[in-house]
Amino acid sequence: MTKFDEATQAIRVDETTYDVCLDPGYSIGGPLNGGYLMAVLLRAVVDASPHEHPVTTSAQFLRSPAPGPAQVRLEQLKAGRTATMTRATLVQDGTSFIETLVTTATLRDVAPDWMGRPPVAMPPIERCRTLPDPGPESGMTFSAQMEVAYDPPTVGWLDGDPSGSPEVRAYFRLAEPQDPDPYVLAMAVDCLPPVVFSAGARGWAPTVDLTWHLRALPAPGWLTLFGSGRMIGDGWFDEDVEVWDSAGRLVAQSRQLARVGRG
Amino acid sequence: MTKFDEATQAIRVDETTYDVCLDPGYSIGGPLNGGYLMAVLLRAVVDASPHEHPVTTSAQFLRSPAPGPAQVRLEQLKAGRTATMTRATLVQDGTSFIETLVTTATLRDVAPDWMGRPPVAMPPIERCRTLPDPGPESGMTFSAQMEVAYDPPTVGWLDGDPSGSPEVRAYFRLAEPQDPDPYVLAMAVDCLPPVVFSAGARGWAPTVDLTWHLRALPAPGWLTLFGSGRMIGDGWFDEDVEVWDSAGRLVAQSRQLARVGRG
Repeated sequence: MTKFDEATQAIRVDETTYDVCLDPGYSIGGPLNGGYLMAVLLRAVVDASPHEHPVTTSAQFLRSPAPGPAQVRLEQLKAGRTATMTRATLVQDGTSFIETLVTTATLRDVAPDWMGRPPVAMPPIERCRTLPDPGPESGMTFSAQMEVAYDPPTVGWLDGDPSGSPEVRAYFRLAEPQDPDPYVLAMAVDCLPPVVFSAGARGWAPTVDLTWHLRALPAPGWLTLFGSGRMIGDGWFDEDVEVWDSAGRLVAQSRQLARVGRG
Repeated sequence: MTKFDEATQAIRVDETTYDVCLDPGYSIGGPLNGGYLMAVLLRAVVDASPHEHPVTTSAQFLRSPAPGPAQVRLEQLKAGRTATMTRATLVQDGTSFIETLVTTATLRDVAPDWMGRPPVAMPPIERCRTLPDPGPESGMTFSAQMEVAYDPPTVGWLDGDPSGSPEVRAYFRLAEPQDPDPYVLAMAVDCLPPVVFSAGARGWAPTVDLTWHLRALPAPGWLTLFGSGRMIGDGWFDEDVEVWDSAGRLVAQSRQLARVGRG
């Protein structure tokens, strides 16, 4: 079992309750990463489902849970031949922290009938840029879990030179050797700095709603993440992330609506 | 009160229950349009919220309700200063038909800090194309509720000449004189033929999950709908719809995951 598998495991108590333990190693200077928390929830949902894969996940982030024990509560809304729909809630000390609606199904490994192209051409990985180590005093334990190599203009804000558009693009893999799977994708769609940093914003940008779709099972190797936004206004912004695998296939799509940080 | 307002009204029974009456005039040859049903749900959510606008809505379509009386059941998940999060369920005869998570907030009429451009240039409305009247025997009562003028290549499938890509673009307004509002937008994001028709598919394409974000309050006049998809495979497809208003502002964004029809 890898560290990530261990940090996301969900132990069945009964058909509607799973015990989980939220790992402090996924902290963004305090709050735990939302993608990591979705991965934990999805472990429970898929374990309780007759289907193998979390195909759609819509999550509302109500509050930030603390590291430590928590529970996932499930309610099956519909069990179908093709898909099962489940409501899953992350609960800690009797309070709901994340509310989700999840559709599980079993994806087959077949070529797509039609697929668009990646949004833009990425530079080769050796020309991409890593972020500086945030250091232990930052509380950014999350960044040690992964290797991320950024398309340089999309992190120009590091040098006071933001591109002016909401965008972020990067190669991604877990720091420990592990092939990507749907749970890694759940984290990947929410692992990059907010796209609004490239448009000049700063600070913690709380996600209100994040919906993502698993489109195919990812091939081993690096993932490529294409993040972009369509509008920033009145303190709200949208962030779209497409995830492509090393075989050149679109494997996940997410969109979140979030608040612009005040930092 | 307009016909649309009447067809979507929700009458408060108590703080967690609203009575609604699903109008047979929104039928797609049997099932009621999903966007219309979201509008009904959102009337109840907003009425019960301290905020004015449905900013994010994630809906799972479990089953197709019948026209006639139904109820919306609400559970407030979090009440905040900026946003309130609510679970809302459409219930008929004790069974859940649509499960939603909704964030309400109050949008101010301010210019965006940053906004992308419309996806493509639309031809002028007088060069666009309307669909033939489906006739009473089709059961397509929904099409009488609205005026829709299509960008011609995106409905080439009508003549056996699909464009080959999942896409549909059109101007839209209600058939009765009514300015667009958030409830009209809820219907607009789900009112066009499935984008897969342009890629050669046919038949009823059931939506599994639809998430949409209200980005601004629409100006009076025609709306422009830009629908597109990124992948079709293994019987699943995604459909994105952007809605722009007559003042040239992005007012809504949706994405749904749906099943390709077998028609």
